[in-house]
Amino acid sequence: MPAERLRRDSARTRDRLLDAAGELLAGRGTEFSLPDLARASGVATATVYRHFTSVHDVHREFYHRMVDELVGELEHISTRHHGVERLRLIDERWVKLAVRWGRASTHIRRPEGFLERVRADDPLTSALYDGLAPTVRELIAEGIVPEQDVDYAILLWITLFDERVIADLTATAGWTARRVARSLTASLLGAWRAPSDVAAPAP
Amino acid sequence: MPAERLRRDSARTRDRLLDAAGELLAGRGTEFSLPDLARASGVATATVYRHFTSVHDVHREFYHRMVDELVGELEHISTRHHGVERLRLIDERWVKLAVRWGRASTHIRRPEGFLERVRADDPLTSALYDGLAPTVRELIAEGIVPEQDVDYAILLWITLFDERVIADLTATAGWTARRVARSLTASLLGAWRAPSDVAAPAP
Repeated sequence: MPAERLRRDSARTRDRLLDAAGELLAGRGTEFSLPDLARASGVATATVYRHFTSVHDVHREFYHRMVDELVGELEHISTRHHGVERLRLIDERWVKLAVRWGRASTHIRRPEGFLERVRADDPLTSALYDGLAPTVRELIAEGIVPEQDVDYAILLWITLFDERVIADLTATAGWTARRVARSLTASLLGAWRAPSDVAAPAP
Repeated sequence: MPAERLRRDSARTRDRLLDAAGELLAGRGTEFSLPDLARASGVATATVYRHFTSVHDVHREFYHRMVDELVGELEHISTRHHGVERLRLIDERWVKLAVRWGRASTHIRRPEGFLERVRADDPLTSALYDGLAPTVRELIAEGIVPEQDVDYAILLWITLFDERVIADLTATAGWTARRVARSLTASLLGAWRAPSDVAAPAP
């Protein structure tokens, strides 16, 4: 086979394995083995071992693919839209992606903090930060939200748009993806607009 | 030994085991065994097995002890204080507890959503819900925050006061516990006060 086609086949197999990993994660959490993944995907065990060195590697790659998808969407939206409209469109896509990732995503949360990973130059977290920061800076520059600590503002954003929160509101509370996106965007704008001394004790 | 003293000794050993579990969780995450816990705590392995049936049992009990502490504090504060003052005091205690739990707490997050666990009558999550709901209802009744979906309001609260967020702001950003509590309380009040149509598209 020509090299190009080999690469394409390999990428397709990898995607198929990660799709199956998503089903395993959703069904039974992180407790599965590479042979389990082979069985679930219908891919030969030897091939699975060529793609992944361990189950932790599978978790990590599943997580990477999720964040990659989100970062891709951020770039696409950010070049075409501005202001609150951009925020709204990003949040809508984010919720739709999280709904598609489903319960699988709630099993593979990193224990390290978001800011911790940004400071450590974790490439994927930095890409996410860089994808979100221009929107926050633009909203500040346009006076839609007040001057504030951009790191804290982004931390609020990724915290509210947590996959477990989105899964809870759609699957448990029965909200539509649209309603979840609208509500979380409203809450986030409220949080960003809050005067930072609002919680000061009475003098 | 009299039964009372036996019970007291047993409770003390359990606490010592959970303290050691906290150090193991903080140091290397969830990947440790009951014999590891015996070594780390200086408690005989046979005794460890009398307290816990598996490492998952240890994770669960560590999580239970954390939420129990928080619920205890909620009750204590709620009977003595009102309004924004009560919210502020709860948030301060919450952050201080999370700082004490430290990195250990970020390794044992439940994959099920908060509302999902409340609907399933999970006793600990229900106790937390019941500890938080009166404060939200009082703020609504007093007109400090507008009429709103109490489930959603509480979900925002426990989401913003996530242990990983608190660890990130204190350990990574270097904020004091006081500053974290003030800032998150301000953001939460902003989110609760946000008009729910703030993110509606321009007509």
